[in-house]
Amino acid sequence: MIFDKFKNIRTFIFDVDGVFTTGTVIATDDGGMNRDFNIKDGYAINHAVTNGYQIIIISGGNSEGVRKRLSKLGVQHVYTAVSDKKKKLLSIADEFQLDLNNTVYMGDDMPDIPVMEMCGISVSPADAAWEVQEVADIVTKQLGGKGAIREVIQKVLISQDSWANDTAYVW
Amino acid sequence: MIFDKFKNIRTFIFDVDGVFTTGTVIATDDGGMNRDFNIKDGYAINHAVTNGYQIIIISGGNSEGVRKRLSKLGVQHVYTAVSDKKKKLLSIADEFQLDLNNTVYMGDDMPDIPVMEMCGISVSPADAAWEVQEVADIVTKQLGGKGAIREVIQKVLISQDSWANDTAYVW
Amino acid sequence: MIFDKFKNIRTFIFDVDGVFTTGTVIATDDGGMNRDFNIKDGYAINHAVTNGYQIIIISGGNSEGVRKRLSKLGVQHVYTAVSDKKKKLLSIADEFQLDLNNTVYMGDDMPDIPVMEMCGISVSPADAAWEVQEVADIVTKQLGGKGAIREVIQKVLISQDSWANDTAYVW
Amino acid sequence: MIFDKFKNIRTFIFDVDGVFTTGTVIATDDGGMNRDFNIKDGYAINHAVTNGYQIIIISGGNSEGVRKRLSKLGVQHVYTAVSDKKKKLLSIADEFQLDLNNTVYMGDDMPDIPVMEMCGISVSPADAAWEVQEVADIVTKQLGGKGAIREVIQKVLISQDSWANDTAYVW
Repeated sequence: MIFDKFKNIRTFIFDVDGVFTTGTVIATDDGGMNRDFNIKDGYAINHAVTNGYQIIIISGGNSEGVRKRLSKLGVQHVYTAVSDKKKKLLSIADEFQLDLNNTVYMGDDMPDIPVMEMCGISVSPADAAWEVQEVADIVTKQLGGKGAIREVIQKVLISQDSWANDTAYVW
Repeated sequence: MIFDKFKNIRTFIFDVDGVFTTGTVIATDDGGMNRDFNIKDGYAINHAVTNGYQIIIISGGNSEGVRKRLSKLGVQHVYTAVSDKKKKLLSIADEFQLDLNNTVYMGDDMPDIPVMEMCGISVSPADAAWEVQEVADIVTKQLGGKGAIREVIQKVLISQDSWANDTAYVW
Repeated sequence: MIFDKFKNIRTFIFDVDGVFTTGTVIATDDGGMNRDFNIKDGYAINHAVTNGYQIIIISGGNSEGVRKRLSKLGVQHVYTAVSDKKKKLLSIADEFQLDLNNTVYMGDDMPDIPVMEMCGISVSPADAAWEVQEVADIVTKQLGGKGAIREVIQKVLISQDSWANDTAYVW
Repeated sequence: MIFDKFKNIRTFIFDVDGVFTTGTVIATDDGGMNRDFNIKDGYAINHAVTNGYQIIIISGGNSEGVRKRLSKLGVQHVYTAVSDKKKKLLSIADEFQLDLNNTVYMGDDMPDIPVMEMCGISVSPADAAWEVQEVADIVTKQLGGKGAIREVIQKVLISQDSWANDTAYVW
C-alpha cells in the first residue's frame, strides 16, 4: 500500500511552476517574471523544515524571486535552470546519499515524468498535465499553488505524528 | 447567543495573509512580496475606522507594502513579523486595556488558533485551513481577500446601527 | 422602458475599482498599488471613443497607473481621489453642459449610490455590493474587471448601430 | 475535414492578450503593464520550436515584457503595436513565403476576425468574444492564458507524431 510508504518519507522534492505556483508567470515590462506562491503551502514547508524534514527544489525556471521566497521558508536546497531533471536528481541523490525510495516527488508537466518514476511516491496537483496525472501515484485534490503542496506534506506528517504538534502554532 | 455578542464589539483584530488577502504572495525578481487586497474590504475597514472602531492587525509576515496599505485605510495598530501571536495579543490587551470578550478575531491558519480561543468572537474565512474552521465561532460565506473582512465588519456594524449611516456614502 | 433610453446615451461615467478592475489592489513593497484591467473592456472603451462617445471616470482612489492606463485607452476625463462623488458629478455636469438623463453610470459600492440615482441609466457589475445591485437599473451578467464595462458599452452601441461597424476590426 | 488540415500545419500565428494571457493587464504605478503567461503554454511553445515549427506573434499591444517573455520561449517572430492585423499578415506572408493554408491563427477579439478568415485553421479560446467564437473553426476547451495555446499546439503535434517524442522530457 502506498500509505505505508508515507511513514518512511524524510525528503520532499518539488518542481516550482504549477506546483508551488498556479503556473502563472507575470511578465513585467523590464523583463521580470513574478510568480504566485501560497501562504498555506508556505506554512506547511516551514513546519516541515522545523520538524527536520528535507526539502529539495528542482526547477527548469531560473528566478531570483523564487530562490529568495524559498530560502525565506527555510528550504535547504534549491536547484534552478535545470534542463534535464533526471540527471540532476541522480547527482543530488549521490551527493546527499538519498535513498530515493524514501522521497516524495511532486511535478506537473512532461519534464517531471522521468523523475517521478525514480522516487518512492510520485504526486501531481489536480491540474497537472494529463500525461503527468496518469503516471502519478497520487493526484492531490488541491490545485498547484493553491494547497497541493500543503496536502502532501500534511498527509505525510500526520502519518508520522508530526503535523499538529507543539511547533504547529507558531510561525 | 453569539449574535448578542455583536453589540458589544468595539475592536476587530485581523490576521493578514488569507484574511485580508487570498493567501497569494507574489514573489518578484528583486525579492519583493506583493499581496492582493480587496477594495470592498478596504471600504469596510475605512468605514469602521470613521465610526470609531479600533482595528488591530497581527501578522506573521513582514511587509512594508502591507503596512502602507493598512495605514492608508486608517488602521491604527499594525504588528508584523509576529511569531507567537498569543504572547503578542496578551501584551496588546494589557497596553490598550482591552477586554478581549469585546473583540472579534479573524484568522485562517494554525498559528491563529491559540488567539481565536482568547477573543469574544472567533471568525474564519470560508477557505481557512480546516483545523481553523473547526474552532471558529463563525465561518464567513466569503473567501479570504474576497469579502470575508467586509462580511464580519458589516454584520457587527449593522447590529449597532452604524453601517448604512450618514458617513457610508463618501470615502 | 429602459432600453429606449439606450438610444440617447452619448456619455459613459465609470467608477474604477470593482468596475474597470476586479476590485483587487496589489500592494507592492514600495507602497505601489497595482490594479488589474481587462483587455476586452479596453477594446470596448477604445472603440466607443473612436466612435465619438464621451468617457468620464470618477474614482475615490488615486493612482498614477490608473490614469496612465485610461489615457492610453483614449479616455478623455479622469477624476481621481474624489471623496464625494455626487458633488463632483454636479460640477462636471455643469462644466460640460451634460444632460445627466443621457448618461450611463456604473459603480459597485456604497459611495456610488448617490451618483447612480442622478444618471439616466444606472448599472452595476454582477459582483457589486448588494446595496448597489438593489438600486441599479441593470446588473450586468459579467463581473467587474471581467467584461462588465464591455457588456454595457456593447449594448448601448448596438442599439445605435455603432458596434460592429467599419472601425471595429482595427485597434 | 478540419482535422486533415492538422497534418500540414508548420506555422502557428498567435494574438497575445486573451490568448497567451487571460486578458488581464496589470497596471503599475509607474505606467507599466504586466501580463500573465502560463507555464504549460510556455512548455508547448518551447517544444514546438525545438521540433522545427514556426511561431509568429501579431499583437495590437506593445510591451517590452511580452517581447522578452516570448523571446525566452524561443519564439522567432514577434510583431507588436500592430493596428491593422490583416495588412500585417499579408506582408508577413509575402516576406516568409508563407502558404496561409498551412497556418493556424488563434485570436480572441474583433480585430482578429479579418485575420482568422485568411488562415487555414482559425481557433479561439473558450472565453473569446462571442463574435470571434462564431467565426472560429475550433473553439478550445481551455481558456486564454490557461492552456488554450497548449491545446492547439498539442493537437497539431500529436497529429504529426511530434508531441511525446524524445525531446519532450527535457526543457
